[in-house]
Amino acid sequence: MRTSIATVSLSGSLTGKLDAAVRAGFDGVEIFENDLLACPLTPEDIRARCADLGLRIDLYQPMRDIEAVPEAEFARNLRRARHKFELMRRLGADTVLVCSSVSPQAVDDDALAAEQLSRLADLAAESGIRVAYEALAWGRHVSTYDHAWRIVETAGHPALGTCLDSFHILSRGSDPKGIADIPGEKIFFLQLADAPLLAMDVLQWSRHYRCFPGQGGFDVAGLVRQVLATGYDGPLSLEVFNDVFRQADAGPTAVDARRSLLVLQETVGRAPLPDPVVPTGVAFAELVTPDAEPLAALLGALGFTRTARHHGKPVALWEQGDARVLVNTGTAVRRDGTRLAAVGLESPDPAAAARRAEALLAPVLPRRRAPQDVPLDAVAAPDGTELFFCATGRPELPDWRTDFENTDVSPAQDGIRGIDHLALTQPWHHFDEAALFHRGVLGLHAQESVDVADPYGLMRSRAVTNPDGSVRIALTVGAAPTDDTVHAQHIALATDDVVAAARRFREAGGSLLAVPANYFDDLAARFEFADGELETYRDLGILYDRDDHGVFRHCYTRTVGRVFFELVQRDGGYRGYGAANAPVRLAAQHTARALTGG
Amino acid sequence: MRTSIATVSLSGSLTGKLDAAVRAGFDGVEIFENDLLACPLTPEDIRARCADLGLRIDLYQPMRDIEAVPEAEFARNLRRARHKFELMRRLGADTVLVCSSVSPQAVDDDALAAEQLSRLADLAAESGIRVAYEALAWGRHVSTYDHAWRIVETAGHPALGTCLDSFHILSRGSDPKGIADIPGEKIFFLQLADAPLLAMDVLQWSRHYRCFPGQGGFDVAGLVRQVLATGYDGPLSLEVFNDVFRQADAGPTAVDARRSLLVLQETVGRAPLPDPVVPTGVAFAELVTPDAEPLAALLGALGFTRTARHHGKPVALWEQGDARVLVNTGTAVRRDGTRLAAVGLESPDPAAAARRAEALLAPVLPRRRAPQDVPLDAVAAPDGTELFFCATGRPELPDWRTDFENTDVSPAQDGIRGIDHLALTQPWHHFDEAALFHRGVLGLHAQESVDVADPYGLMRSRAVTNPDGSVRIALTVGAAPTDDTVHAQHIALATDDVVAAARRFREAGGSLLAVPANYFDDLAARFEFADGELETYRDLGILYDRDDHGVFRHCYTRTVGRVFFELVQRDGGYRGYGAANAPVRLAAQHTARALTGG
Repeated sequence: MRTSIATVSLSGSLTGKLDAAVRAGFDGVEIFENDLLACPLTPEDIRARCADLGLRIDLYQPMRDIEAVPEAEFARNLRRARHKFELMRRLGADTVLVCSSVSPQAVDDDALAAEQLSRLADLAAESGIRVAYEALAWGRHVSTYDHAWRIVETAGHPALGTCLDSFHILSRGSDPKGIADIPGEKIFFLQLADAPLLAMDVLQWSRHYRCFPGQGGFDVAGLVRQVLATGYDGPLSLEVFNDVFRQADAGPTAVDARRSLLVLQETVGRAPLPDPVVPTGVAFAELVTPDAEPLAALLGALGFTRTARHHGKPVALWEQGDARVLVNTGTAVRRDGTRLAAVGLESPDPAAAARRAEALLAPVLPRRRAPQDVPLDAVAAPDGTELFFCATGRPELPDWRTDFENTDVSPAQDGIRGIDHLALTQPWHHFDEAALFHRGVLGLHAQESVDVADPYGLMRSRAVTNPDGSVRIALTVGAAPTDDTVHAQHIALATDDVVAAARRFREAGGSLLAVPANYFDDLAARFEFADGELETYRDLGILYDRDDHGVFRHCYTRTVGRVFFELVQRDGGYRGYGAANAPVRLAAQHTARALTGG
Repeated sequence: MRTSIATVSLSGSLTGKLDAAVRAGFDGVEIFENDLLACPLTPEDIRARCADLGLRIDLYQPMRDIEAVPEAEFARNLRRARHKFELMRRLGADTVLVCSSVSPQAVDDDALAAEQLSRLADLAAESGIRVAYEALAWGRHVSTYDHAWRIVETAGHPALGTCLDSFHILSRGSDPKGIADIPGEKIFFLQLADAPLLAMDVLQWSRHYRCFPGQGGFDVAGLVRQVLATGYDGPLSLEVFNDVFRQADAGPTAVDARRSLLVLQETVGRAPLPDPVVPTGVAFAELVTPDAEPLAALLGALGFTRTARHHGKPVALWEQGDARVLVNTGTAVRRDGTRLAAVGLESPDPAAAARRAEALLAPVLPRRRAPQDVPLDAVAAPDGTELFFCATGRPELPDWRTDFENTDVSPAQDGIRGIDHLALTQPWHHFDEAALFHRGVLGLHAQESVDVADPYGLMRSRAVTNPDGSVRIALTVGAAPTDDTVHAQHIALATDDVVAAARRFREAGGSLLAVPANYFDDLAARFEFADGELETYRDLGILYDRDDHGVFRHCYTRTVGRVFFELVQRDGGYRGYGAANAPVRLAAQHTARALTGG
């Protein structure tokens, strides 16, 4: 199917939006009137530019407050329409969106609306233009798609059809089943948007909070199935008003948008994508750093040993149990300080996983970094993290460890079982994108987003996981675009005895994040503990949480660069990440940073 | 009356919040539990710190999900309460907030709620603590203040009273008249918050969008009058959950908060503030710049003449009609580039205006900058703009022009009548504060805030005006905290013939902002013009708007530093500022900036 995007969904100038749309692979665009008005190019220039890019102008939009008005007003509206149809001729656009009126002059008279829309369609037809009439969810008299369709049906004009918009339909709770009553050829256009499920004024909701399909709570796919069943053969077109996307770079937003459509098309059986290959574990986490010493000290105190080094690059492998951490001191990465740069995911079929990622617009990274390296499949996530699809210890497939030469040191086994979860800081403008990427590309399950109170603003966090919990990634974002320092990335290490692990770490010279005594007094008020248990937690700075399934105990190391480690004991099927404790942890990290001047 | 603020209303660490509250002049605080838990100080230390600062701890909050639960659960709740009362003893807090339960375990049984709250109050009384029971607007069974009061009344316990919260009452549309039925001594606490009138889920509304009284749409003063009429003699206390304030510096937020309470107290007759002295005109606008030449060229082309210079500072006075622009090239201001730094407001009583501003916490600026200067009353606005209260040409009062020595050049009279309005860019985190400041301190009227689509995000703009429109200030803010460049400050100059003024400016070598031709095609579709009229606008880049009162024509100069000029012809009582044209203007400014590489 053809895909299209409304220019209002993207940030910047019209020409920048067109470039971004075509680079992301869209076939067409809806030209939003204000984007045209603000553009220094003539309509002919815009037409030529779209033609050069191979973009079709699928829709010009919107015309407002046309129908069901007194005759004198309608005459003025026709005059306005004549100008716009002339503009569309110059632009080479053949379909115009007409939104149901919100004008106080409009009357509740379907016959009049049909008659006037019919006259508008007469005028449009003279210029070879089709009119697509759409019910705004907040239209004055026409606010549902079936009502708009009844008016179009009454008019019975070949150049008049309806435009369906998933936001307007689903935000009102209308049942999309009624779409089956509309002949496919009378559906002139289909606009798609999702939205988070917010109980708010529908106009505000629409103007500020729309998002791409799969990023919100609507069953957009269900609606699209209904529309396709009618025989509709126009494009799937995205129209998203969103305060954040308005500020974000158009390029990544357009890729995000197109990926959401690809996933949607797959859901409704119209995009033959390679099947998802769900990762089955974390092969490694790779830290890059300009100075290996602080990380080496930290990993050493945590009981890791340096078991191998890369044959061609300054990368060391540290191991303990199934936890593997690469420390990369390569010059290419030095300027950004210490950060979590790559994640190796165990994959049942690395090549297939990479093919799906590529089909879903993830940038594919070179398979070999150097001639002697084993070929590895890897892509970049939206936050820049490199994702390697790995087959560790499976002889039939290339093993990333082949590039490493063992030191004489054996892997340690000192209480850490493996990696419980990873936390990756997301770019502020692309948080919604991140979850869709991990869900669509990797086949992970995205949990609900939660707000977390940092002393300096509300952060958000959203976990994506595989079915058995052996891959857990917490996607986090700061309160503001400027805020990416304290909400650091981290590696949470799984242990069966966090008290023992914390003690060992401290005895080995490690420094645990100090947690205020007041927190433990509150724990005493909320829970009952065995004798001495709480004192142990207080001594070590171990935080405590419970859910319906089990208990979570966790503590934190100090931060190196932008990265810290967490020690995690997850008992009895506890499913969360200690979000209730996050405000205390974040405040403690601010305190620690203030003390060290970091 | 005593004033207090909940620590959750401010950003940062608990100690930073206490400092900010006391500096802003609050008498007390509500300690929000999470702030205490995250604080490394012991309760005793916090108590001592508050005592040192002269801050009373008026409330500890909140306790949740206490009442109307099965006995075994209530026993656990009492155990929890015992811990919290011990904490409050250490802290020296004597009142605790109990919110109506949201627990799924709670039953709809007022008698049980009253009985259990009574037992809680028994326990509290043993520690000299009072329990203030409050209806959350989203409480499971108790969600209105009168319901909460009925339960308190039923309990009839001396240590049990009610807490009233303006947000919970007004967000549900409850009538505050019923407050008269509550004896003042049973109102243990009063929490105040305003909010913009949003039709949204009340929990989300409350957690993210509360603001200080006078910043939103609630009649907080009406509610306070009702409460005071009962004889309530506790503090007026602010409890505001707001995503922006969470990120803002605590110092300015606390000042903002206290100012809002002062204005509120004045409204209800409890704060004897000096009366507002509403400005009657704009005496001057002062630009500071590291390089006078570009501004001199611009002002010259606009028909201004340099009529005087300051006797002691590098400041020139440019005049035309009643428009006066100071150009200051003093070294102290050079590093910030060219910007609008000060505004002279004509004041019927400059000294009284300054007294009111000072009483409302505006920083007062030194009356004389140098020994030989005339004494002038001036304060700083929240955005840092210096506001001078002026008496131009009134012999009985000091005249700011006394400090200026005339050049031999007479004031020009070349089509500009005066200053139509000024646009001041506000700090992103303090936009709500700005309108309250101009309303409360200057007695201006604040219009509704409007969203304006810049190509790179939604800006907001809010005008404040005096009754006859001779003072009009548009307060504007960018889409994001980082965004303060293009949304530049400007000086709009009033003319009776914008076409002539624009032509003169161009003939004098001035360069007008280029407006896309597509904009004028759209004007042709929307309005009918006399022959040649539209071509003139197109030629000069004059934008056009109409409202129910009249017509607005305006055009723009190029930007110097962060400042540009607008030429404005306002006919027939047009009241706006051409907001409909702002997206086109902003896009044109982006285009111009891209062309000049600025």
